[in-house]
Amino acid sequence: MKIIIVGASGTIGKKVTEALRGENEIITAGSKSGDIQVDISSTESIEAFYKQTGNFDALISVTGNAYFGPLKTMTIKDFDIGLQSKVRGQVNLVLIGQHYINAKGSFTLTSGILSDDPILLGVNPAAVNGAINAFTKSAAIELENGVRINAISAGVVEDAPGYFSYFPGHIPVTMDRVTNAYYKSVFGALTGQVIQVW
Amino acid sequence: MKIIIVGASGTIGKKVTEALRGENEIITAGSKSGDIQVDISSTESIEAFYKQTGNFDALISVTGNAYFGPLKTMTIKDFDIGLQSKVRGQVNLVLIGQHYINAKGSFTLTSGILSDDPILLGVNPAAVNGAINAFTKSAAIELENGVRINAISAGVVEDAPGYFSYFPGHIPVTMDRVTNAYYKSVFGALTGQVIQVW
Ligand SMILES: NC(=O)c1ccc[n+]([C@@H]2O[C@H](COP(=O)([O-])OP(=O)(O)OC[C@H]3O[C@@H](n4cnc5c(N)ncnc54)[C@H](OP(=O)(O)O)[C@@H]3O)[C@@H](O)[C@H]2O)c1
Ligand SMILES: NC(=O)c1ccc[n+]([C@@H]2O[C@H](COP(=O)([O-])OP(=O)(O)OC[C@H]3O[C@@H](n4cnc5c(N)ncnc54)[C@H](OP(=O)(O)O)[C@@H]3O)[C@@H](O)[C@H]2O)c1
Repeated sequence: MKIIIVGASGTIGKKVTEALRGENEIITAGSKSGDIQVDISSTESIEAFYKQTGNFDALISVTGNAYFGPLKTMTIKDFDIGLQSKVRGQVNLVLIGQHYINAKGSFTLTSGILSDDPILLGVNPAAVNGAINAFTKSAAIELENGVRINAISAGVVEDAPGYFSYFPGHIPVTMDRVTNAYYKSVFGALTGQVIQVW
Repeated sequence: MKIIIVGASGTIGKKVTEALRGENEIITAGSKSGDIQVDISSTESIEAFYKQTGNFDALISVTGNAYFGPLKTMTIKDFDIGLQSKVRGQVNLVLIGQHYINAKGSFTLTSGILSDDPILLGVNPAAVNGAINAFTKSAAIELENGVRINAISAGVVEDAPGYFSYFPGHIPVTMDRVTNAYYKSVFGALTGQVIQVW
């Protein structure tokens, strides 16, 4: 299987990449890292990227920024950070990628726990995750040729201790559970699902 | 109670406005209609708007566009329509409005059924509604001085027969149930809730 992993050098992406190597042909990507570079905030960059990768069987997106900060002082420019990157970037990987994906291929996007179990300072990622989850559910009923789409919604991960203090009472999830969720999305048959890992 | 209704001239907004008149001081608004004009897609316009309305007790937003069309030919520019209008517009009404709202006031935003029960052509409104629902849930834990926020998520409404054919098997909801949901959000004590009407 030919699998593209955007965000392969990240905290989660590198563990997902390790777990999927083996018999699969993996193409890693990031804005600066990976086999091929792509900036998900740019339509031109995504178009050029897929021209370079060619047709593929699975696209995993483990990337996308959002703004962490208090609602009280938040401006729409702060809020735009997550819309531009984690929402538009990931959605555009699907909108353009649908024209390159093989029949029975799959898209796996990344959302996160904050839309369901919010924390202080997390309004922007919460909204962003809610958009990705609903996009996934809705896109699944329109994708053709057996192409599937799922979103992985993980809690704060054990490999990101820098975030723990912002998530009081949250139990960090093991990387093994997280990588298995991506694995399940790619090699299983689910579609339109938000796969919760928390 | 001083209540601002943005989108008061719309299919839903006009019924909500009727239901809330009476003992309340109502300020209706729209981009072209209403007591005061505001374009929710413009930060400057929203700032000027709240300067004109002054402090208030409740803000109801029953507005926001999204793009209806097939995923297959969708571009990120199409997808942006909903992000710009229904997401950013409504979020910005809260981000700026939080500095004008009275203690114990409330924000009531509008999402919709499509994030939970998708239809063909509805990917953009689905994603948009998911963002509004999650924003609401998360913003509720940061708003201060007892200020509340809820989102109303209605099914296709009985007063919008032009949409019925896009919603096969959906049972249009009565305007009475819809207006009561807005009423409950404003006069009840709920916060951080997505009030489903379907
Ligand atoms: N960490 C957690 O606990 C956690 C939990 C749940 C969900 N999540 C979500 O999971 C995703 C990844 O999180 P992470 O902690 O693994 O992030 P991370 O360590 O910051 O890694 C981000 C990855 O994305 C790539 N990237 C950044 N900007 C890009 C762009 N414009 N275009 C293409 N690639 C880009 C980076 O590579 P380059 O540097 O080469 O660009 C890197 O590979 C995020 O959406 C995050 O919200 C994280
Ligand atoms: N209709 C349904 O069945 C249904 C079901 C569930 C959810 N919803 C949601 O409910 C909301 C309202 O729907 P609707 O059918 O009542 O809409 P509508 O009839 O088209 O009314 C839209 C209202 O918003 C105002 N408006 C439009 N653009 C604006 C802008 N840029 N700034 C400020 N105000 C603006 C309009 O006034 P002006 O013309 O003066 O701008 C009008 O009062 C939408 O978010 C929709 O997705 C609708």
